[in-house]
Amino acid sequence: MALVVQKFGGTSVGDADRIRMVADHVARTQRSGDHVVVVVSAMGKSTDQLLRLAGDVSNSEIPPREMDMLLTAGERISMSLLCIALADLGVKATSFTGSQAGIITDTDHTRAKILDVRPDRLKEAINEGIVPVVAGFQGVSIEKDVTTLGRGGSDVTAVALAAALDADVCEIYTDVTGVYSADPRVVPNAKRLPRVSFEEMLEMAATGGRVLMLRSVEFARNHHVPLHVRSSFTWEPGTWVVEEEPTMEQAIVSAVTHDVSEAKVTVVRVSDQPGVAAKLFRALANEGINVDMIVQNVSAEGFTDISFTVPRSDLAGATSAAESIQQELGFTSITTDSSIARVSLIGAGMKSYPGVTAKMFETLAEENVNIEMISTSSIRISCVVDEADVERAMIALHAAFELG
Amino acid sequence: MALVVQKFGGTSVGDADRIRMVADHVARTQRSGDHVVVVVSAMGKSTDQLLRLAGDVSNSEIPPREMDMLLTAGERISMSLLCIALADLGVKATSFTGSQAGIITDTDHTRAKILDVRPDRLKEAINEGIVPVVAGFQGVSIEKDVTTLGRGGSDVTAVALAAALDADVCEIYTDVTGVYSADPRVVPNAKRLPRVSFEEMLEMAATGGRVLMLRSVEFARNHHVPLHVRSSFTWEPGTWVVEEEPTMEQAIVSAVTHDVSEAKVTVVRVSDQPGVAAKLFRALANEGINVDMIVQNVSAEGFTDISFTVPRSDLAGATSAAESIQQELGFTSITTDSSIARVSLIGAGMKSYPGVTAKMFETLAEENVNIEMISTSSIRISCVVDEADVERAMIALHAAFELG
Repeated sequence: MALVVQKFGGTSVGDADRIRMVADHVARTQRSGDHVVVVVSAMGKSTDQLLRLAGDVSNSEIPPREMDMLLTAGERISMSLLCIALADLGVKATSFTGSQAGIITDTDHTRAKILDVRPDRLKEAINEGIVPVVAGFQGVSIEKDVTTLGRGGSDVTAVALAAALDADVCEIYTDVTGVYSADPRVVPNAKRLPRVSFEEMLEMAATGGRVLMLRSVEFARNHHVPLHVRSSFTWEPGTWVVEEEPTMEQAIVSAVTHDVSEAKVTVVRVSDQPGVAAKLFRALANEGINVDMIVQNVSAEGFTDISFTVPRSDLAGATSAAESIQQELGFTSITTDSSIARVSLIGAGMKSYPGVTAKMFETLAEENVNIEMISTSSIRISCVVDEADVERAMIALHAAFELG
Repeated sequence: MALVVQKFGGTSVGDADRIRMVADHVARTQRSGDHVVVVVSAMGKSTDQLLRLAGDVSNSEIPPREMDMLLTAGERISMSLLCIALADLGVKATSFTGSQAGIITDTDHTRAKILDVRPDRLKEAINEGIVPVVAGFQGVSIEKDVTTLGRGGSDVTAVALAAALDADVCEIYTDVTGVYSADPRVVPNAKRLPRVSFEEMLEMAATGGRVLMLRSVEFARNHHVPLHVRSSFTWEPGTWVVEEEPTMEQAIVSAVTHDVSEAKVTVVRVSDQPGVAAKLFRALANEGINVDMIVQNVSAEGFTDISFTVPRSDLAGATSAAESIQQELGFTSITTDSSIARVSLIGAGMKSYPGVTAKMFETLAEENVNIEMISTSSIRISCVVDEADVERAMIALHAAFELG
């Protein structure tokens, strides 16, 4: 008898029909003999509607505490509706707010972090044969205020509960059928991966894979919670995200990911001295700008170029932050490029096969794709290329590494 | 410096524009030097929308606990939006759920009763110059589940908080400008009453006055909370509901009310013996039917007729409940009439003027209105008449007692 946490996102509970289908699936899981704990997001577009209402009543900044109070109404609606639908199928179910489920957070409204999980009421319910249906995305702060966990928060709720309840699996239901070897919209013969390691999933989440947020994968890895990413539309088995088993032979390359949300900034001919890079990135950090890749060329005649990528929405801020210290640092100029793309190869087996990098570069060269920046980890190689080349690069890499 | 509780109903916070207007009024009240505590209902039709969704996911009875969880989302939305609108006006405001406001109830979901009010967090906020905005209609049970207070529950929340905080007044904002001497839709020259006593208001609420629910008026009277019923559309002063001042000369008659929601049942030729009426009304009570007026005629030859009124929606149930004990009680037949109306005269001064009853009957006789049942209290006389006569009766009585 397994304990299964099932998390359903906004599209999975988007309307009354979909809620009935989710209820049916939960009921079937329970009838098969497993214990089920459900975590739900707010219904489809309801969060957007609430945000619009907030904009309609205010022209100034929204107080974060009230924003959290407002948005958490969404999950209360979806979770109680799901319990009502389950009752209609004869399944005993009880809804729990984040607070009632024991999700204790810090006081950082709109992006709170979970400090503790005290799932006593959920355990009680499970022991009584009741299916707990928990509001995702929300918790209660140590000051007893309602908080939200920020983007991807419902996945974090599900993983945190799975960890605290020592669940056998945390199933993340979504509108895709799993994790693919590449984005199927770009690479038509991309195939679903039956399993990936946490490390691979982390690299994929960090480099453009949109199925899971980095944060929930990290949480799952740290707490050894096996994830199963699957579809609430077809209900077929999806992709397992699990710990790497050392005895297992690993695919050298599992997936190609891409990301077209970033822009490149190059600071040209900066003096190659200790402390210069520190000053530059402190200036960016002070503006709250998240820098992703950083590449510094080898020095020539005591000068170097520093290139880095930032979210496109931060490009203007990054440029002006860099300009503000141009005099101090004495660099020549700043160039920017907002039509770049990042293409990454990810594979846990890559560490022991040094030829992968060479093959990647050869493949891109054959396609006449110029590489503008390179960054690597032990299980990932990322290249920044022209955005116009990204599709060609993806298809060529996917074929060269026989991922289809 | 007064402490004012301001309660805004669903139409008062029906959309973003109305929420902004309410925020403006709250801000002006605070700037005038008073402390304000706000209680809000859910926005306009949002409760109906949630009820429809519940019906869409279930064909069976809705579990009451989940119904409460679902419906309480409505006030969370309106209260956080109001706080956001207040912040936009520079007013510090913090929203509180029923639970956070310390509204402790029994576990009777969908119609919970308040057991205790522990407004510590509200007091703290008030002392810090913050306007607490509290979700009406909801509380937390002694088992830590979310409960709702049933019909008129937001008014009860407001009155209970006013009592617990020892507020100077509880202002009930609504879509009418106060309490009238008769329903203005029926009696065009009805006038707004500047003040009525709790006792009069109770009788009015019980006999068809729709402005306040019986329950909140009772709560206010028992806890000596002055009420001020007024409009959130014109913001003009409305009607004060206060304790009767014995030194004050009282109007003999304050208002005429009417109610067309009931039906009459007569049990014909029932044996006039002890215990017979008890059996009849026990049978009705067992079906959960709320009987309002009861009239028993004087006995003739050991037999009598018993007439009573019930809500029209309960007429079928009441008839079959009575039929089920026809053999046991041995009565001849049951007659019903669902086109009746109740017309009531209410006035605290009535107790010392015995002529009121006679004048009421004379007025109705002059209008050729037949009286089918009569019931009285010390400050009220009610007559059941044919529904077709109700408008004529109202206008005649309103004129005869010079209420216009």
